[in-house]
Amino acid sequence: MSREIKTLKTVAEMRAYGTERPLGLVPTLGYLHEGHLSLIRRAREECATVVVSVFVNPLQFGPGEDLARYPRDLERDRELAREAGADAVFIPETAELYPEGYTTEVRVRGIEDVLEGAARPGHFAGVATVLAKLLNIVGPDRIYMGQKDAQQSFLVGRMIQDLNFPTRLVVAPTVREPDGLAMSSRNVYMNEEERAAAAAIPRALSVARDTKSKAPEVLEQTVREEVAKEPLVQLEYVFAMDDATLGPVGPKTGEVLLSVAARVGKTRLIDNVVVGRE
Amino acid sequence: MSREIKTLKTVAEMRAYGTERPLGLVPTLGYLHEGHLSLIRRAREECATVVVSVFVNPLQFGPGEDLARYPRDLERDRELAREAGADAVFIPETAELYPEGYTTEVRVRGIEDVLEGAARPGHFAGVATVLAKLLNIVGPDRIYMGQKDAQQSFLVGRMIQDLNFPTRLVVAPTVREPDGLAMSSRNVYMNEEERAAAAAIPRALSVARDTKSKAPEVLEQTVREEVAKEPLVQLEYVFAMDDATLGPVGPKTGEVLLSVAARVGKTRLIDNVVVGRE
Repeated sequence: MSREIKTLKTVAEMRAYGTERPLGLVPTLGYLHEGHLSLIRRAREECATVVVSVFVNPLQFGPGEDLARYPRDLERDRELAREAGADAVFIPETAELYPEGYTTEVRVRGIEDVLEGAARPGHFAGVATVLAKLLNIVGPDRIYMGQKDAQQSFLVGRMIQDLNFPTRLVVAPTVREPDGLAMSSRNVYMNEEERAAAAAIPRALSVARDTKSKAPEVLEQTVREEVAKEPLVQLEYVFAMDDATLGPVGPKTGEVLLSVAARVGKTRLIDNVVVGRE
Repeated sequence: MSREIKTLKTVAEMRAYGTERPLGLVPTLGYLHEGHLSLIRRAREECATVVVSVFVNPLQFGPGEDLARYPRDLERDRELAREAGADAVFIPETAELYPEGYTTEVRVRGIEDVLEGAARPGHFAGVATVLAKLLNIVGPDRIYMGQKDAQQSFLVGRMIQDLNFPTRLVVAPTVREPDGLAMSSRNVYMNEEERAAAAAIPRALSVARDTKSKAPEVLEQTVREEVAKEPLVQLEYVFAMDDATLGPVGPKTGEVLLSVAARVGKTRLIDNVVVGRE
């Protein structure tokens, strides 16, 4: 595609942007990779207008996390977004989204306390809050998020439903490197050796799924054993949950969400598979 | 006015309601009184479409509060809203606004912890949450609220700003009975003797304002002494705060919000005046 991409820097510019409907929003922290681009291409297919937001939201990073070193390259992001079919990038300043006196918080209780929420206190309040803001600022008909951040997508879907945002959530499949590693902006943190070792994460998920079991203990134990074969990868957690509720697997469970977080050197990665989905 | 008023019972009906802009929303718990009607009339002057929501929001009532006995009369509300110029009433069911699995909460931290927030734990999370929902369902250009619930208006204004709702908050003056008592749906709870005694509340605020002092201790002590003259009225709290921040009065304070809560028999009433406003 050779068309131009518009850069919108303020809330007022975003609101004034003349948009044909339906409008699709792809919210990102920037440093776009193939996972984001697949969301943008999907939005392009389904929407008359596609907006990509790029905002490294400080509210969703905890103390000691990688906010400061989170990779940023706006020019590259603009170009990649344009090539994938976006009409505009929205790149607000932190000071405009969180001015002095800012105090409101959106909480999705229950969901925010497990998995990544337990590992990263406050993370999901930050995610829910910034997404409520982006939904109000951009006013999309559809919002596109990735299955890689399954809990985040679940939480945003819950928030949209609970607060009656007039927006439909579209969750697209995880895009993977040839060796299976889920695409992530954080993959660039790893050196060559770590990067090779990181493939143990999707491999473990895959082996667990291939057991054809839906029993949490079987799935979780399989992941533990598989990851243990790779000394450079430290498993942080593995949980099998009901994919429809993010609660415990029970007799009514259809599909099982098998989620892991692991560290490879200083890099923290997450991934998941849905067990029982065709 | 002789025109019809539309009754919208579901979120889908509300969303499908063809509306000319600007759209004004007057959110209420029903049992409309002159205070609400003044908001509807103001909205009628300023907006092409006026929607009045009537919803006794369980989230903003604490255990032991008056949720069950809160007065309800939908037919009367419809007629009063119509006469005041409303185009539609939106009367959702609790089960539709809070279905099973509902878990999202909007918090306006700091503000929710003082005055009514301190007296009624959870109250303002309930208020903020239902108003976020109503803003998303109705999509108003303007929302009209009363100065009588000063902290509630302040909190909603903060939430609108913080979460970037594309809606302007209009706060209208408190409407009072001839003896000064602020209009409230809860006034019907009082017997004749209590009703007469309740006038001590606005009288005390008025005497305090007439001191021309902006010193919190002077204002608060004046209210205490004045209310103490009426044995049927038990003061619950009186606070003088910076009207612009709801924080402590300081050197930068312009106007002072002097707020009281009091009980007359079993009826809990609130009121306030702004000191230093022309």
